[in-house]
Amino acid sequence: MSKVRPPRIGIIMGSDSDLPVMVAAVKICEDFNIPYTVKVLSAHRNAEGTKRFAASAQKNGIQVIIAGAGGAAHLPGVIASYTTLPVIGVPVLGKATAGLDALLSIVQMPPGVPVAATAINGAKNAALLAVQILAVSDTALARQLLEYKKRLQKQSRDKNRNLAAKITHLLNHETT
Amino acid sequence: MSKVRPPRIGIIMGSDSDLPVMVAAVKICEDFNIPYTVKVLSAHRNAEGTKRFAASAQKNGIQVIIAGAGGAAHLPGVIASYTTLPVIGVPVLGKATAGLDALLSIVQMPPGVPVAATAINGAKNAALLAVQILAVSDTALARQLLEYKKRLQKQSRDKNRNLAAKITHLLNHETT
Amino acid sequence: MSKVRPPRIGIIMGSDSDLPVMVAAVKICEDFNIPYTVKVLSAHRNAEGTKRFAASAQKNGIQVIIAGAGGAAHLPGVIASYTTLPVIGVPVLGKATAGLDALLSIVQMPPGVPVAATAINGAKNAALLAVQILAVSDTALARQLLEYKKRLQKQSRDKNRNLAAKITHLLNHETT
Amino acid sequence: MSKVRPPRIGIIMGSDSDLPVMVAAVKICEDFNIPYTVKVLSAHRNAEGTKRFAASAQKNGIQVIIAGAGGAAHLPGVIASYTTLPVIGVPVLGKATAGLDALLSIVQMPPGVPVAATAINGAKNAALLAVQILAVSDTALARQLLEYKKRLQKQSRDKNRNLAAKITHLLNHETT
Amino acid sequence: MSKVRPPRIGIIMGSDSDLPVMVAAVKICEDFNIPYTVKVLSAHRNAEGTKRFAASAQKNGIQVIIAGAGGAAHLPGVIASYTTLPVIGVPVLGKATAGLDALLSIVQMPPGVPVAATAINGAKNAALLAVQILAVSDTALARQLLEYKKRLQKQSRDKNRNLAAKITHLLNHETT
Amino acid sequence: MSKVRPPRIGIIMGSDSDLPVMVAAVKICEDFNIPYTVKVLSAHRNAEGTKRFAASAQKNGIQVIIAGAGGAAHLPGVIASYTTLPVIGVPVLGKATAGLDALLSIVQMPPGVPVAATAINGAKNAALLAVQILAVSDTALARQLLEYKKRLQKQSRDKNRNLAAKITHLLNHETT
Amino acid sequence: MSKVRPPRIGIIMGSDSDLPVMVAAVKICEDFNIPYTVKVLSAHRNAEGTKRFAASAQKNGIQVIIAGAGGAAHLPGVIASYTTLPVIGVPVLGKATAGLDALLSIVQMPPGVPVAATAINGAKNAALLAVQILAVSDTALARQLLEYKKRLQKQSRDKNRNLAAKITHLLNHETT
Amino acid sequence: MSKVRPPRIGIIMGSDSDLPVMVAAVKICEDFNIPYTVKVLSAHRNAEGTKRFAASAQKNGIQVIIAGAGGAAHLPGVIASYTTLPVIGVPVLGKATAGLDALLSIVQMPPGVPVAATAINGAKNAALLAVQILAVSDTALARQLLEYKKRLQKQSRDKNRNLAAKITHLLNHETT
Repeated sequence: MSKVRPPRIGIIMGSDSDLPVMVAAVKICEDFNIPYTVKVLSAHRNAEGTKRFAASAQKNGIQVIIAGAGGAAHLPGVIASYTTLPVIGVPVLGKATAGLDALLSIVQMPPGVPVAATAINGAKNAALLAVQILAVSDTALARQLLEYKKRLQKQSRDKNRNLAAKITHLLNHETT
Repeated sequence: MSKVRPPRIGIIMGSDSDLPVMVAAVKICEDFNIPYTVKVLSAHRNAEGTKRFAASAQKNGIQVIIAGAGGAAHLPGVIASYTTLPVIGVPVLGKATAGLDALLSIVQMPPGVPVAATAINGAKNAALLAVQILAVSDTALARQLLEYKKRLQKQSRDKNRNLAAKITHLLNHETT
Repeated sequence: MSKVRPPRIGIIMGSDSDLPVMVAAVKICEDFNIPYTVKVLSAHRNAEGTKRFAASAQKNGIQVIIAGAGGAAHLPGVIASYTTLPVIGVPVLGKATAGLDALLSIVQMPPGVPVAATAINGAKNAALLAVQILAVSDTALARQLLEYKKRLQKQSRDKNRNLAAKITHLLNHETT
Repeated sequence: MSKVRPPRIGIIMGSDSDLPVMVAAVKICEDFNIPYTVKVLSAHRNAEGTKRFAASAQKNGIQVIIAGAGGAAHLPGVIASYTTLPVIGVPVLGKATAGLDALLSIVQMPPGVPVAATAINGAKNAALLAVQILAVSDTALARQLLEYKKRLQKQSRDKNRNLAAKITHLLNHETT
Repeated sequence: MSKVRPPRIGIIMGSDSDLPVMVAAVKICEDFNIPYTVKVLSAHRNAEGTKRFAASAQKNGIQVIIAGAGGAAHLPGVIASYTTLPVIGVPVLGKATAGLDALLSIVQMPPGVPVAATAINGAKNAALLAVQILAVSDTALARQLLEYKKRLQKQSRDKNRNLAAKITHLLNHETT
Repeated sequence: MSKVRPPRIGIIMGSDSDLPVMVAAVKICEDFNIPYTVKVLSAHRNAEGTKRFAASAQKNGIQVIIAGAGGAAHLPGVIASYTTLPVIGVPVLGKATAGLDALLSIVQMPPGVPVAATAINGAKNAALLAVQILAVSDTALARQLLEYKKRLQKQSRDKNRNLAAKITHLLNHETT
Repeated sequence: MSKVRPPRIGIIMGSDSDLPVMVAAVKICEDFNIPYTVKVLSAHRNAEGTKRFAASAQKNGIQVIIAGAGGAAHLPGVIASYTTLPVIGVPVLGKATAGLDALLSIVQMPPGVPVAATAINGAKNAALLAVQILAVSDTALARQLLEYKKRLQKQSRDKNRNLAAKITHLLNHETT
Repeated sequence: MSKVRPPRIGIIMGSDSDLPVMVAAVKICEDFNIPYTVKVLSAHRNAEGTKRFAASAQKNGIQVIIAGAGGAAHLPGVIASYTTLPVIGVPVLGKATAGLDALLSIVQMPPGVPVAATAINGAKNAALLAVQILAVSDTALARQLLEYKKRLQKQSRDKNRNLAAKITHLLNHETT
């Protein structure tokens, strides 16, 4: 998955079952043409591998880490304990507790070791946040973000097209 | 705190602010006369120390680990990732989320790496559970547990003494 | 279900509707070759049977009890009230309250009578915890657990194989 | 506490620390002049005593049981498992989970073994419900309940007296 | 639905969409051969009808009222405000809040006006509780309840039959 | 969608994916024959458009604004920050947190800037509330509301028709 | 409390213990010089009085009703069942469930009978919403609201005065 | 508060009542000697000012924005809607909902507009995250962070000093 250019963003997840959620982060990296790497690293089942990845990320050129996990989602926090790079945590929705388990496990980090939490299943925003972080010192990226924001706005405005037809359809569908 | 005999139970906590809660576990070890050790080990601020403790606990003679933590309480899970000893997690009540953060972070561990969660602030039960675990192969301890259970029952029964007086006092106090 | 050797682990559940969840505990016992017994025992509908099982478990050779239940999941606590063996509680997910009912009913035990709670539907970890407890005084089992932990780590690492292909598939699937 | 007349209502609680909440039930029994008995019976610490009480309540003349408990509040459910008398459960507020632990442990009983849950700390209503249950076949009590309901209504109406003065006081207090 | 004998139990629900849940209460009345009546009465859409039903229930011979409702489930409380009969509330599970809305709306009644809450969707237990209430002064019903309890126990014990086969099936099903 | 008459009610939603929920508000406007306009306006993706709509709503003749949004549902609050018109917020149910995210984001507005929250997915009631607001100074609408209320009551009463048949069907369906 | 002019806003609360919260609504009415009336009306303890108030409010000249209540806060919904006036519900914070009981009981109203929920303890916003509703057809009030909004903005901006001094104080206070 | 050097970090809060929480972010900026500015900006009471700040932050040299707010904490999201700078949100604990309102309002942002959420009251970590973001392209800061991390670890280790004495004190205090 990693490109020839050394990856700037590391996208990590606790299990390959998180991939359908986390792929939205990959998509953003592709769209912004930022080199990235993707790894399955379980904080609990592969603690050594997780530690090794986190402790060496900075010297391997990684600048931001995105970590997605569900349940007692320790992965982002464990990574943050081994690096001073910004770590972004994505709570992945499971079957129980309506997602509060992963959210609280990721967001309630103790003073001294921050993790940036996104929405439950918010992998897309995690990657956008990573791009924003890189853009702090990368004016080309910053320009791309402004364009992205304009496109977002346009897409949002465009959702008003054919609204009347959609409403009529829904009203008829309901009443028939 | 550790006795001359090598400790069989390790009592760990994320911060010394957890000590007023976790001391109840110490008390049980003292009451059952089981050698123990107490350490402050933050999973996030002292990841290396935590790893070292967990990875070497078994060969240092520790047989059960009790870990208390609040917020994104990763400590028990991180310890469990480095040992196959039974790990008991005590969620410590904080100011927000009514204790659900520490509880869910501790209890919702992924398949393969168990942590035994007790009640929020349940350090006493954590230690009793540790004693029960040791008692599986220690008939003297098993006997002590039976006596403890009898004492508990007696104490519960004894709470009926003077109940009428207490009720009268409460009724009068309320009505006056 | 019980083998010729007397069971060391008792796997109990409140209803046979819990079996699809609890079978994961059976699987671990089989994998570790530990004799076990499985019983449906409702704390509320069969209080006498539950009491009898719990009160006689120790003298019947059982060393750890795993109890799964949903809703007002009293089963683990009721069993713990009649034995000093370690009792592991598995909250079973129901339709309402996102699993918080069974979790809180199991984990919030009062001082003096511990229950070890696992994740919601965490029957596999319950059995692994039971194996860890038995392994405290059983070096063969302790060795098996180390091997299991290594296999887990390998399986976790192996999930990185073909990751690029899976990601490409997901990206294409999404964009087409 | 029990009167010379045999008690018709049993008021049970898991610990004497529940007494300040549960005394409101005693007060209602006194007000309606219904004989009652009060006992501390822990489902977990005194399982045998709890069972004995529940199993013999009916033949001892008790007609309704009120049981208050906090945390993993199994007491009402355990009592209900040993009797077919109506059992009313009062969730007692603890420090964690904002009272949801006791509420869910009491209310989420499985089909076949009902418990009637009241509000968190709702001991007064538990006793009024007990009186309503007895009044089903006791016209004198039914009359008393109608009078009680009228008094309630009058008290509620009377809270409008001096309301203007109280409001003026609060407004001045706030603005000064 | 009402039998020739005047109904002793009133089964009320806020909407006919609650019927698939509430029919379990009807089933119990049929099984215990207790005359009952079933009505759809919305506390909010048909306040007058609800009031009229509640205010006249007692003189119409009804002895216990069961009221099921979802969302802001005011129905049981509104009925309780117009009668001194025992009112049993059944929270009906909706799409949002995991059932906490109906549960809290029903159970958190203010002092003076009790409602007996059952489990979310607990219509069967609501009816059993109603039978228990009637049985306080009806020894034939009390005997029926004891038999019911024995049948429950037997059914629970019987769930152990063929357990080994079911487990084997589940294990094979999982591994194949 | 907007009629020839200038719209009196603005129905806004954060995304066109909210339309199947929000169409219930459109339906009420149609039924009460009140001119309205429907727009997709994201508080976050189209902040300028949202501001412009809110700031000019009053001078464009809009009298009440209904805003539906899910997740961190800022839309109603952002609109309320730019207008003194009544703003009604509809929390839209998402996949996580059982709807609590949108509900709390909408309802917990700070002092000074009110938003009127309805039920989760409560678009129909949002529009009825808007009609009630317009009816404060529109006696024709007030009359329509009284008629609507009578129809509601009648519909609720009519749900008792064929109830016996439905119950019999459900009982047979269950028992066969 | 009611002025000589007939009241336009009715401020209702379930108990006089809600007055310290609800007085903030009175304050806004005074500030905007809108005639109002204040009443304690319990939906459960004084159902008749509540019904009478609600059913006659419109013909008594009341145009908006604000109702505050805690726990199973049925008051706003019960009022809404007897009137087509806009009803604003204020959930009052109690000791248990962190305010979710009153919030969900008020906000989760069924289709057909709306209640406008404000924040927990949000009596000030309830009154501001009532003023906004009256302002729909009262240009003088609408102007007052615009001025209020400007004052709010100015007050918010003014909170930046002396901020440096406050921060220095807090920093010194913490470090000393 | 702003230094002579143009601020790189903007610390914003919804109300000056958030200052005791947010001052921890100021402290970190001071400790790392990073120029910053502090402002009270309410998203709802001062929407224009908030917009102006957010829209001009980047060209004013600000590189990261920290925004703290309680209740329906829209401030971070509203700022994020007007800038592509990284925005860090700090949920501030209020009296109700145990902090879930501000947390969910901040964290559950929709795709396209990220906010980085920290723990409830986590202002210190918000500032550390801001420093980490700046350190991505500032090797001096990156070095400072490594030193900070070492100090954290040392402080955590140092909490083991005198632990035995503290435990003895707590044990004696409890038993006397």
